[in-house]
Amino acid sequence: MGEHTLKIPMTLHQENRECILKRLHARGGYAPGSVILLQGAEDDHTPGSSDIDHVFRQESYFLWAFGVLEPGWYGAIDASNGRTTLFMPRLPQEYAIWKGYIRSPKEYKCQYQVDEVHYVDEIAEVLKKITSGELLTLHGTNSDSKRVTFEAHFEGIGNFTVNNKVLHDEIAECRVHKTEAEIQILKYTTSVSCAAHRNVMRSIRPGMKEYQLESLFQHHTYYHGGCRHQGYTNICGSGPSAAILHYGHAGAPNDRTIKDGDIILLDMGAEYYHYGSDVTVSYPANGRFSDDQKIIYNAVYDANQAVMAVMRPGVSWVAMQSLAYRAMLKKLTEAGLVKGDIDEMMAANIGSIFMPHGLGHLLGVDVHDVGGYLEGHPSRPIGAGYRYIRTARVLQKNMVITVEPGCYFNDHSLDAAFANPDQVKFLVRKEIDRFRGFGGIRIEDTALITESGIENLSHDLPRTVEDIEAFMAAGIERDACVPLQPIQCNK
Amino acid sequence: MGEHTLKIPMTLHQENRECILKRLHARGGYAPGSVILLQGAEDDHTPGSSDIDHVFRQESYFLWAFGVLEPGWYGAIDASNGRTTLFMPRLPQEYAIWKGYIRSPKEYKCQYQVDEVHYVDEIAEVLKKITSGELLTLHGTNSDSKRVTFEAHFEGIGNFTVNNKVLHDEIAECRVHKTEAEIQILKYTTSVSCAAHRNVMRSIRPGMKEYQLESLFQHHTYYHGGCRHQGYTNICGSGPSAAILHYGHAGAPNDRTIKDGDIILLDMGAEYYHYGSDVTVSYPANGRFSDDQKIIYNAVYDANQAVMAVMRPGVSWVAMQSLAYRAMLKKLTEAGLVKGDIDEMMAANIGSIFMPHGLGHLLGVDVHDVGGYLEGHPSRPIGAGYRYIRTARVLQKNMVITVEPGCYFNDHSLDAAFANPDQVKFLVRKEIDRFRGFGGIRIEDTALITESGIENLSHDLPRTVEDIEAFMAAGIERDACVPLQPIQCNK
Repeated sequence: MGEHTLKIPMTLHQENRECILKRLHARGGYAPGSVILLQGAEDDHTPGSSDIDHVFRQESYFLWAFGVLEPGWYGAIDASNGRTTLFMPRLPQEYAIWKGYIRSPKEYKCQYQVDEVHYVDEIAEVLKKITSGELLTLHGTNSDSKRVTFEAHFEGIGNFTVNNKVLHDEIAECRVHKTEAEIQILKYTTSVSCAAHRNVMRSIRPGMKEYQLESLFQHHTYYHGGCRHQGYTNICGSGPSAAILHYGHAGAPNDRTIKDGDIILLDMGAEYYHYGSDVTVSYPANGRFSDDQKIIYNAVYDANQAVMAVMRPGVSWVAMQSLAYRAMLKKLTEAGLVKGDIDEMMAANIGSIFMPHGLGHLLGVDVHDVGGYLEGHPSRPIGAGYRYIRTARVLQKNMVITVEPGCYFNDHSLDAAFANPDQVKFLVRKEIDRFRGFGGIRIEDTALITESGIENLSHDLPRTVEDIEAFMAAGIERDACVPLQPIQCNK
Repeated sequence: MGEHTLKIPMTLHQENRECILKRLHARGGYAPGSVILLQGAEDDHTPGSSDIDHVFRQESYFLWAFGVLEPGWYGAIDASNGRTTLFMPRLPQEYAIWKGYIRSPKEYKCQYQVDEVHYVDEIAEVLKKITSGELLTLHGTNSDSKRVTFEAHFEGIGNFTVNNKVLHDEIAECRVHKTEAEIQILKYTTSVSCAAHRNVMRSIRPGMKEYQLESLFQHHTYYHGGCRHQGYTNICGSGPSAAILHYGHAGAPNDRTIKDGDIILLDMGAEYYHYGSDVTVSYPANGRFSDDQKIIYNAVYDANQAVMAVMRPGVSWVAMQSLAYRAMLKKLTEAGLVKGDIDEMMAANIGSIFMPHGLGHLLGVDVHDVGGYLEGHPSRPIGAGYRYIRTARVLQKNMVITVEPGCYFNDHSLDAAFANPDQVKFLVRKEIDRFRGFGGIRIEDTALITESGIENLSHDLPRTVEDIEAFMAAGIERDACVPLQPIQCNK
């Protein structure tokens, strides 16, 4: 997106395609002479018949394999030798007036660094020539969205033998293991998000609306980092809103006014070249932690640090979730919110009352990246708290995964716990009731698994109570706009 | 969205529903005891199986009729008395933890000011009770997107008589005529967009990337105006990019570096409560018009002013397109780019070489608002330039329509004209060739049709050459960030 942003080498996609080939060869289960066929997304219309499209974002598998940024394409890879053919839409002449210069197949071949580019209307004919086996298409279910992949289809596909059994798990597995080029992008996006978070930390003032923080963040990542998209809907919770895990959607659109004394939970991450980032910071709106805020913040921070201290190849992610619960419960016990033996609390799922979500998730082209639950890997656990965990895998080098423990005071969750005879005995009602309306705290880092441990991609943020207070103090001197006057209509 | 933004009265939707009833009664063609049934949009997923949703935007007809901002709803209106029933999704208990407090039907009844609220799973049963005639559903084609409306459907609809012939044209016709409450929102959104454009005008510097202007604009409209969405994909063309009418899409993502001497064309408009705005400004990147830029700017400005001077109820929009062409051709003749008799040029469609698009479009919940071509109104003209016009209607009071003449030097368009024996004789090749690579200029205002003329909702912008230069001069003193250094990855 410009001299000050990150350049993407097209070899990234070539490496990704080589990974598919290697895994497919090892797996087998398809005929010789087969061709992998993926279909990219079409224009992304808004719901209904309105003449409004979303800014196009390529389907994730297609982007990952080919890097094509425009709608209406197909891509084919010869499974025996990796020879790659793209199919582009034949654009009408009017495109040159409405949307821009029409590039030729030859120009695109150079741009996307593939072997051949043809038009989509030639797809049946070209595939007939290059396929002597099956068409290997993508069919599988995303374990986070529960939605089924977009499987390639074209007029005339009935004349081919289609095999949709082998590709999905292998391509998803490839996406789990990040290449050096992908790691560079994830470092970049995370670094852009951290910079924007730091800017928001110094701009926040009680009296602002939550969405003004979202606006500051988005502007910073786009203006300075070239990030046109966000990786997900930004979550900007203040006070009680911070107890809602996925706050910020259209039904709760970051529209509360921030009050002095509120805790703030900002889960925001920009996306660059479709690769996401995912960073959560929590801090007091006024820049100074109250004693209660310190208790909860440090309980979460301990969990975050305990996990990152032991993450390395060979460690089970489920064990990390348990470790986070234990670290948090230890602190909550010391603070008198819960009581009893930690092993017994673990057996009664006390941790999940305060942290009813998974500890983290793989990160890549999708913010909840694919591959959390594939054949041959541990299946989803069933315990409270654990069943939301987005992967139960054993960590491996070059995975990128978020570490995001949290502690929330959600009335629905607390009321259920107080009504549960197995749980109520561990809870100190008087102390917990003091925190009703407090909201919640989440601290989310992004870890790259290395040979011997992790590299924290989001390290460039103040994270201890002391560092946050010192960092925010320097922001108080800044001008900040807290608009309360209506913009005049036709004054 | 807060004390400094616009409050929306729910009576807006009640008035809109009354309009449907009134028009349906006048039209007839349905059984007594019928009920109008609309279905709102579901969650808006990104393409493919990724676990990423767009920030939800309600389907436009549904928003217009009911004001419901969340996914998964239905709405029914008794066609005889206007009694309104909403159907809300029954949310799982986990919603309270992930997405927020679960409101009851009673709470929603109060919030949306309707007669009843039931759950969607009760829809067949409730409709059975209140319908003795037909279910009137929405079926029609959007004349801009060419896409078919989202027609209500639910399990068990087969037990009802469905009539989808009468509703579409009547509801679309209602949307053409803005109520006072709707006009207030359109004034607000347009005013927010004008303020953001003024801010960009004072922040621009050669050396910036085009998308940095988009980022500045979006931030201003969201931070100050509470506008989370934009009405359309922002078009930020500089230099040659300004000749591409719908520049800014994913295939041409506002990523050119702005050069000293460039003309800038910014077509950007924010959206508030789903009501859009649409404002285009054109000016020199460095704040001072060159002589050539003045020629083209004034040709377009004359067309814009000529049209707005005569717009009033009873005037045909097709005649306005002709008037714009005439005004522009007059100026281009004076400047020596074209030659000959203007009537003859009009017959040869010379105007469309330079302005190959329609003069404007209705504006409302959709940026290209519905109702441009309904039964009983003039059908789409066929001449070059005219066939893209988004309505051929006669203007009426309380229509809101954009006035956006433009003059572009698009190689594709110019080459075709020079190759056309009917057109080439009017073109002065030497003069026109001087403008190759110049880009283009568009000046877009938004007009509310009044009793006797128009009110220009986007009046709060510097529009003459002199006013623009004076306004931009005041911006040169401002600090502006032209980032050219990479953001460090893990420095």
